[in-house]
Amino acid sequence: MTVTLADLNRMDLAAFEVAVGEAFEVAPWVAAAANARRPFATVSDLHAAMMGAVRAAPREQQLAFVRNHPDLAGKAAVTEDSQREQASVGLDTLSPKAFARFHRLNDSYKAKFGFPFMICVRRHTRDSILEQFERRLARDPETEFAQALQEVFYITRLRLAAKVTGEGMPQVNGRLSTHVLDTHAGRPAVGVAVELYEQAGERYHRLATAITNGDGRTDQPLIGGRPLPIGGYELRFAVGDHFRRRGIEAGDPPFLDVVPLRFSVAEPEGHYHVPLLCTPWSYSTYRGS
Amino acid sequence: MTVTLADLNRMDLAAFEVAVGEAFEVAPWVAAAANARRPFATVSDLHAAMMGAVRAAPREQQLAFVRNHPDLAGKAAVTEDSQREQASVGLDTLSPKAFARFHRLNDSYKAKFGFPFMICVRRHTRDSILEQFERRLARDPETEFAQALQEVFYITRLRLAAKVTGEGMPQVNGRLSTHVLDTHAGRPAVGVAVELYEQAGERYHRLATAITNGDGRTDQPLIGGRPLPIGGYELRFAVGDHFRRRGIEAGDPPFLDVVPLRFSVAEPEGHYHVPLLCTPWSYSTYRGS
Amino acid sequence: MTVTLADLNRMDLAAFEVAVGEAFEVAPWVAAAANARRPFATVSDLHAAMMGAVRAAPREQQLAFVRNHPDLAGKAAVTEDSQREQASVGLDTLSPKAFARFHRLNDSYKAKFGFPFMICVRRHTRDSILEQFERRLARDPETEFAQALQEVFYITRLRLAAKVTGEGMPQVNGRLSTHVLDTHAGRPAVGVAVELYEQAGERYHRLATAITNGDGRTDQPLIGGRPLPIGGYELRFAVGDHFRRRGIEAGDPPFLDVVPLRFSVAEPEGHYHVPLLCTPWSYSTYRGS
Amino acid sequence: MTVTLADLNRMDLAAFEVAVGEAFEVAPWVAAAANARRPFATVSDLHAAMMGAVRAAPREQQLAFVRNHPDLAGKAAVTEDSQREQASVGLDTLSPKAFARFHRLNDSYKAKFGFPFMICVRRHTRDSILEQFERRLARDPETEFAQALQEVFYITRLRLAAKVTGEGMPQVNGRLSTHVLDTHAGRPAVGVAVELYEQAGERYHRLATAITNGDGRTDQPLIGGRPLPIGGYELRFAVGDHFRRRGIEAGDPPFLDVVPLRFSVAEPEGHYHVPLLCTPWSYSTYRGS
Repeated sequence: MTVTLADLNRMDLAAFEVAVGEAFEVAPWVAAAANARRPFATVSDLHAAMMGAVRAAPREQQLAFVRNHPDLAGKAAVTEDSQREQASVGLDTLSPKAFARFHRLNDSYKAKFGFPFMICVRRHTRDSILEQFERRLARDPETEFAQALQEVFYITRLRLAAKVTGEGMPQVNGRLSTHVLDTHAGRPAVGVAVELYEQAGERYHRLATAITNGDGRTDQPLIGGRPLPIGGYELRFAVGDHFRRRGIEAGDPPFLDVVPLRFSVAEPEGHYHVPLLCTPWSYSTYRGS
Repeated sequence: MTVTLADLNRMDLAAFEVAVGEAFEVAPWVAAAANARRPFATVSDLHAAMMGAVRAAPREQQLAFVRNHPDLAGKAAVTEDSQREQASVGLDTLSPKAFARFHRLNDSYKAKFGFPFMICVRRHTRDSILEQFERRLARDPETEFAQALQEVFYITRLRLAAKVTGEGMPQVNGRLSTHVLDTHAGRPAVGVAVELYEQAGERYHRLATAITNGDGRTDQPLIGGRPLPIGGYELRFAVGDHFRRRGIEAGDPPFLDVVPLRFSVAEPEGHYHVPLLCTPWSYSTYRGS
Repeated sequence: MTVTLADLNRMDLAAFEVAVGEAFEVAPWVAAAANARRPFATVSDLHAAMMGAVRAAPREQQLAFVRNHPDLAGKAAVTEDSQREQASVGLDTLSPKAFARFHRLNDSYKAKFGFPFMICVRRHTRDSILEQFERRLARDPETEFAQALQEVFYITRLRLAAKVTGEGMPQVNGRLSTHVLDTHAGRPAVGVAVELYEQAGERYHRLATAITNGDGRTDQPLIGGRPLPIGGYELRFAVGDHFRRRGIEAGDPPFLDVVPLRFSVAEPEGHYHVPLLCTPWSYSTYRGS
Repeated sequence: MTVTLADLNRMDLAAFEVAVGEAFEVAPWVAAAANARRPFATVSDLHAAMMGAVRAAPREQQLAFVRNHPDLAGKAAVTEDSQREQASVGLDTLSPKAFARFHRLNDSYKAKFGFPFMICVRRHTRDSILEQFERRLARDPETEFAQALQEVFYITRLRLAAKVTGEGMPQVNGRLSTHVLDTHAGRPAVGVAVELYEQAGERYHRLATAITNGDGRTDQPLIGGRPLPIGGYELRFAVGDHFRRRGIEAGDPPFLDVVPLRFSVAEPEGHYHVPLLCTPWSYSTYRGS
């Protein structure tokens, strides 16, 4: 159920609190404080006003607000949003060992900082969440509390972007795309099988497959319409098959068969274009735009 | 124990047969036939004369000669050379399952062709030997017998090259080398960790590690002084560490960390130079010289 | 003055002849012959019907038709279209020496073949027209007459595409574009001065200048909305200035300053994307899409 | 006439002064002062001792020493070394206009600083000398006097390296080399015509031509055995001919014909390896090693 910014600007306070309050994990005071800034010219302004309310609150209220968020992989994700977000990165189906590790990290974190580990899971792979956990556990409380609010910012920005439509939508989605250019023929490489894998420890899990079209691109971005999870990826291109179809002699076995490109995403809202330029004997790649 | 070509040219027939006969798997008639062509100007000429003797022999004698070679992974490698060659590719330490597969293929092969599967193991990885087994089993007997003699040619050429020194040595060794160029700095990338892996089925086994020197190269070729085994390889370059040491900001995590280059060798006596040109955001490779 | 295909399909024969006849250099019989095929589903069909009429005509009529076209750089371009086309490539402002050369070639051509040299000038640079003149003079009459009709095909296709609007427009325009990627920074190179030159003998004449925008591209294609003239080109990119603005140290003088990319166009209706990927110490280019 | 370092270390003071004095433009006191440091372990030590003597001298003596050097393009190069050095960059054959410009700059320079413009001409192209003239004229006297001594350092280092042989020769020579790799074929490009041009204003003068050998390299470095003159260069590679010989179809005219690589040298004692990796549709270059 989405609502327009125009409607939000027009409704009475109680309706406004209901409409946007849930995005802030059952904290109606945030909506109430933001109310004073209505009407909003853009959805980004609405979000900024709500985050401004959190930042302007006394530390005790901020802390209560952060504490109100569920543990990662915990038993009690309060809101449906929380549940859905945690499921998206596989935290709802952890192995007993991984579940135990998460809980151990979470307990250490809460013992040290006095609030649960906040992270916008949709902006991370599972590996990246673990890496963040270890890294942030080592920080001082002030830095880490600022990070917790920053994560709330990311989480609520995504929720508002999903619920409110209107002018000035915040940039919450990234894009991962590729194309394959056959520099032996001076043409796009058509019909090349492409696979996208996500790194998980020492292994790579397949996320997507595609075949390059007449322009050497995939019809859809490999990831799009959502944040790009921070983490490690591998693209695999079946260029050996491509050159074999073209009848090009390139050794037996061919010098290049499946070409892997391994890279990491650090900007979930960014555009990562990772193309492959190749001949049977050479290739290059780059972060393009 | 090596012998010079000059000494070989001078010795009496009996000594000549002993000196070069073993290279031909206990077939003194080959040495005897080659004897008529002495003296040899080059070691390659010596080998050509011996192979010429095999090719000129009646089919029955050729067949007996081929049959005299041990089975791959068999229990009875007749000569020390055979034993050493089979050990080089790990055929002496096969798992029971792999051992059974080799024997099954070998039995099918002998049943179809009437002679054991000949392959110059030092020119192949284990994967490549299996691949050759499957491929050659499907051939017609005439083509396959020619291939068997060709493999004898490779095997004996390596043996002669190891035993005889002198003018005109046959080209039996290949070379795999790399270098890393940091095109962000316009300089060789110094101190980069490089690993070489050999493909075995779905896995990669590490063959060698090196650190690039002041010229961005490794002090020794990654493989040298022997044939390059036909098969799949992966080079891995720790370029993320390199740019981190240089203090270059390239995202967190960095866009490129360990860069894998996956390629195959098809010419065991060739030179494969597989360099990496890289920035924190791009890289290229090619088969160079 | 353009006309819609729908209107063309509806008008009476006399109006139809007037509307499309001029495209065929005052040859109403072509329009009359095509009339039988009305209505046309696409503009391409209309053009195909008119060219079909020319191809089906007796040789004498074809010859008269070709002879009715003005000489290149002649004094008497019959139609305004002819005049405009010849001006587009600078044939109206030739130096006395070049004018003499054109006339000499034209005289030799007419003496040999009995009809004027036909060429769709909008698909060529001046250099390319001269090169075609020399090359085609050497051909046999049959091949050359077929080429003359092919050039009429190109000329009239462009004229119809300019006069008639509707479904199924023929592909008559090409596109030359570029982009600049700074692989040192992993971002599009913004604000880079780009110049496009056309080769004329030993010299290069500037055709266009542009500055790369936030996406490293030029706001408009360097050539677009017309055929790409066959011939030699050079792109020049002020990458030295770009890296200087970024504060990157790259030698004094810098290793790269203005990077020239020299290439030729052979497909006037094609898309030539010629990008530059560069660091202060390296660059690459390719024909992309 | 060269002399060994061992002989220099052994000879009496008068002979030593004669042997090395001329390198310092008729300043026997420099040799006399350096004499105290004999014997020298390396030729670099000898040069360092002589330059140390200059640097330790009172300013008046340094100034007299610098003033003793001939004007660039002057009528009175005192020593044969000076004459030869100025000839090497074409300063002995300037056009009247260029000659006048040099004299004008020189007069302004001497009027401002009180000593002639010192520059190690063998480390510069003519363009670079002019550029240095303009740039250094704008400096403050202290900075510029230090630069003058630095140029004496370069000049005398080259002279000593030419006259004295022995251990620890100073690094005075650079190297410019190339190679051409055909990444369409995965092999060195053999038989490719390569031309090297030096930039002079808007024009390029050809310095060298070569044909790539079996390894895709030139048999000799394009510049070697001397400092690389600071300045602008262009390499031109006839890759269109190469692919035509291979029978590769790449458009008519071919997309790439003569590929120019334009770059500058800033380190006369450095190694510039500027290769070309190319297909008929793409190429790349980089400063390699």
